[in-house]
Amino acid sequence: MPAERIREHTVPVAAARRRRLRADGARLLADLLRHQVRTGAFPGGVLPYEDTIGTDYRVSRNTVRQALDLLRGEGIVERQPGVGTVVVGERYPHALDRLQGLAETLHEHGRVTNEVRTVGPVPAPAPVARRLGVPEHTDVLYIERRRLLNGLPLSLDLTYVPMDLGTGLLGADLENTDVFRLLESLAGQPLGSADITLEAVNADAHSAAVLEIPRGSAVLMLERLTHLADGRPVDLEFIRFRGDRISMNALLHRSC
Amino acid sequence: MPAERIREHTVPVAAARRRRLRADGARLLADLLRHQVRTGAFPGGVLPYEDTIGTDYRVSRNTVRQALDLLRGEGIVERQPGVGTVVVGERYPHALDRLQGLAETLHEHGRVTNEVRTVGPVPAPAPVARRLGVPEHTDVLYIERRRLLNGLPLSLDLTYVPMDLGTGLLGADLENTDVFRLLESLAGQPLGSADITLEAVNADAHSAAVLEIPRGSAVLMLERLTHLADGRPVDLEFIRFRGDRISMNALLHRSC
Repeated sequence: MPAERIREHTVPVAAARRRRLRADGARLLADLLRHQVRTGAFPGGVLPYEDTIGTDYRVSRNTVRQALDLLRGEGIVERQPGVGTVVVGERYPHALDRLQGLAETLHEHGRVTNEVRTVGPVPAPAPVARRLGVPEHTDVLYIERRRLLNGLPLSLDLTYVPMDLGTGLLGADLENTDVFRLLESLAGQPLGSADITLEAVNADAHSAAVLEIPRGSAVLMLERLTHLADGRPVDLEFIRFRGDRISMNALLHRSC
Repeated sequence: MPAERIREHTVPVAAARRRRLRADGARLLADLLRHQVRTGAFPGGVLPYEDTIGTDYRVSRNTVRQALDLLRGEGIVERQPGVGTVVVGERYPHALDRLQGLAETLHEHGRVTNEVRTVGPVPAPAPVARRLGVPEHTDVLYIERRRLLNGLPLSLDLTYVPMDLGTGLLGADLENTDVFRLLESLAGQPLGSADITLEAVNADAHSAAVLEIPRGSAVLMLERLTHLADGRPVDLEFIRFRGDRISMNALLHRSC
């Protein structure tokens, strides 16, 4: 009986440890393959055979399979019968080291269009009023847009703008122009800087429906308060980017 | 019959529209409350009564409830019987406009410790070798760490370092010191810059277990290639931050 009990215990424990090591190895491989996918390292978007990947990375076929499962779970590759594992769902690079509108930062990747879901004046809630430097409950322009790249949904943007500039936005071509561009033209001066906060959140049901992703999908949430060159805050935005379509890129420096 | 059929259709459509508008209003309110939570706007971490929020923001009680549901879903508030809605699960700000190690960027928030899960030489896979500028399959030091702030898991970091510097890391206090600090000391020069990519992904089962979050939770994935001041790449990292514990902050400028 004791021998049997030991066996009962050690087999699952050893198996669990093997599974853990394989999981670590799979994640490690998935991270490397992910980078290669992003940088277009696979000609024609087709990944090498599992055996080839195993040889290249000196890992078992099981580890390769598990790594490919991880990437499939992230929606960046899929298996196509007769072809193999192929890259799907390109992520587009959004510059993070310079203040740019979506159409500006993605101009090499195609055309950004905006579906304006809501636009109109609303009484500024206290935290919006404070950040935009206007009296509480005075009207600000509220804009809700779904933004698309080449017709594919990328983000859902909620925007608040002080009314003196907002009035000008009401007659502007919001469907085809970044708010940044319009604000610079209306204000007669360039934008200066923006305070940003980036978080990863799970999509609520309604945002998921608008972005056409499953509920709970990972979303990059960007909160951004943008100032004109003279320092005046003019644009408060809450942006939800589809996690499977956007990556943020920057070059950071050690010294300020 | 036709009248009944119209009724059958219009009632659900009107209800669906009301639901949509309420969902939009709830998300809008949730975004504003989220910012207030982050900036410590609620004394004692207790949110105002639902009625008070409704009056302050000029929205219905239903909208307030739905907004609080969204924030509960994100794990940033919870309902406590006899107290009300309280802030839980603080997010810590990680600087994104300067290259800093985790202990450096969070030094005002507490003590960062590192559980070293794996450390040792591995033959560099091709994409790692290429990015670190070493010959393929030569050994590099591989380090896997779980990083904690005040004992709470924050991130899972996979790190590759060329062996000439890696040998020095083997004997160092990896539990209590940022790799950045150690590299600068070993190399006898400061770090220079890093190329970073940030994405939102859903946690795979194994990463979720290590980070102590439910499978599928939103994770901030940071890929970072760091160079010494002389330009040599010395540190390739793949970092998964818990989405509910970290936000990235930066000040962006319009001109370069």
